[in-house]
Amino acid sequence: MGIDLKELLERFGRGDRSALSRVITLVENRSSLAPEILDALYTKTGRAYRIGITGPPGAGKSTLVSGLVQVLRSKNKLVGVIAVDPTSPFTGGALLGDRIRMQEIGLNEGVFVRSMATRGSLGGLAEAATDVADIMDAFGKDFVVTETVGVGQCELDVAEACYTTVVVIVPESGDSIQAMKAGLMEIADIIVINKSDREGADNIARQTRAMLELRGERNGWMPPVIPTIASQSKGLDDLYEMIDKHRQFLEASGLLAKHRRTNIERTIRALVESEIYRTIWNESTMHHLEKLVDEVMAGRISPRRASRQLLERLQEDGE
Amino acid sequence: MGIDLKELLERFGRGDRSALSRVITLVENRSSLAPEILDALYTKTGRAYRIGITGPPGAGKSTLVSGLVQVLRSKNKLVGVIAVDPTSPFTGGALLGDRIRMQEIGLNEGVFVRSMATRGSLGGLAEAATDVADIMDAFGKDFVVTETVGVGQCELDVAEACYTTVVVIVPESGDSIQAMKAGLMEIADIIVINKSDREGADNIARQTRAMLELRGERNGWMPPVIPTIASQSKGLDDLYEMIDKHRQFLEASGLLAKHRRTNIERTIRALVESEIYRTIWNESTMHHLEKLVDEVMAGRISPRRASRQLLERLQEDGE
Repeated sequence: MGIDLKELLERFGRGDRSALSRVITLVENRSSLAPEILDALYTKTGRAYRIGITGPPGAGKSTLVSGLVQVLRSKNKLVGVIAVDPTSPFTGGALLGDRIRMQEIGLNEGVFVRSMATRGSLGGLAEAATDVADIMDAFGKDFVVTETVGVGQCELDVAEACYTTVVVIVPESGDSIQAMKAGLMEIADIIVINKSDREGADNIARQTRAMLELRGERNGWMPPVIPTIASQSKGLDDLYEMIDKHRQFLEASGLLAKHRRTNIERTIRALVESEIYRTIWNESTMHHLEKLVDEVMAGRISPRRASRQLLERLQEDGE
Repeated sequence: MGIDLKELLERFGRGDRSALSRVITLVENRSSLAPEILDALYTKTGRAYRIGITGPPGAGKSTLVSGLVQVLRSKNKLVGVIAVDPTSPFTGGALLGDRIRMQEIGLNEGVFVRSMATRGSLGGLAEAATDVADIMDAFGKDFVVTETVGVGQCELDVAEACYTTVVVIVPESGDSIQAMKAGLMEIADIIVINKSDREGADNIARQTRAMLELRGERNGWMPPVIPTIASQSKGLDDLYEMIDKHRQFLEASGLLAKHRRTNIERTIRALVESEIYRTIWNESTMHHLEKLVDEVMAGRISPRRASRQLLERLQEDGE
């Protein structure tokens, strides 16, 4: 059962795909080796450009990602793809069609695909996706493309950790409104109207531009609206060019460095907090908590008073 | 600017609606008086039955809530309604039509309606909604109905704090699949197919039942699927009866008490953690954090090592 970490990291350093896969699995499953692995790889990170692709279900994100990966490969770029699906334990994973499409991209030499799904709690999926992006970065990928399915807090968190976020919508009544309500418009650096051969494409493009006008520039960048037909590989070169333009903008304005700084700060804070929570919610505190819940259930104290009692106890323990 | 808290709580205790409104505002805005208010009211809570209504945008949730409130009023029940809209800062609030509908319900004597929206961070909205439900409970409401718009972590958190969660979908292609993907099916105690005079209603009801069959009972309860046409007040009595049936089931099985216990435990833990969070991220720690971020940016240490250094420092400070 023992893992020879040194040998594994050596193989990883030589570009062995199976070592990459193994390392990701260890980190994803929160193996006890994970901290050591991430520490060892960290100095090799910081090169890969991170792109996030998000949007409502059915917008054709997976097809768009496949197409974008082909464009990147045609420029000899090495690509990592992460498909994040915060699916319920009920469905038990990504939709089959999406999964097959992802596997096909992964057959391409120079492309590494990883699907991540959560079962149960949504917490930590965004952090885990960032860890996997770091690993692919350290492996030598030039680009890491993270696709998130659905709309929710996890998507927003994943997008925050990417440098360029592409929001994909389709010409369907209300799609732009729903994307807006889900907070997707705020995080968009580029908006793609996919399936733009469908009726209403011009309309939704106009509507989207109007919404963006209302919002105005953010940090000096006005998100462009790009029509694509991913299933026919149309508009994908335009998309790549726009991503590159956004990258140049971020680099020239110093925003890319600022972005990296924010990511690092967020990571450190999250690590500190999770360690502190792990320490405080030990067996003894949990036992005390249960007794306090009894008191609250009986109507003798309020939850707030209970929390103060618990805090006092934690303070005494720390002294 | 001083608030006479004693006088306010006295008016609240006499059933003064404007005092209720004032108390909610103080708590929602995290006034410095909020902890004292919640403490004072806590012993009066625990009576109201808490119903959550959720589902994708456009499912007719607001109309369904209006109808359900009418059914409850016809049985002389006092009702509080909370409309939670985790809307983006970009849209700036609930859709106008929904807001007007909610105001109309609120004109009814015996019904109190409160809309809650967030601007910016989604964090804390679910906790705030639970506080508001507690306040309405303490005011003497028999039922608190919380409607959440959209699909996301906030909805799941709100649903967790309710005793009966109703998930509303409509006969539209893919709606049940999307609801499932968003994790709504797992949290449903009752599933409503609204607008069930539309084509495909039978189909989606069958599909939904099949999904539920696959999942099987949860804690001995199999969620029923109920057709409604909320705009014509059809099916709402059935819905109320099913909610009541679920309530009886929860009471008889002891699950209601267990549910309340879990809610209390979660509240205490959240209070403890937010206080600890406030304590650790003080000016001095933040200053130290910035210096560590510099070290990481320069490639000298990893975020993990930085977090360990920060933890050591926090430990020293605590001694």
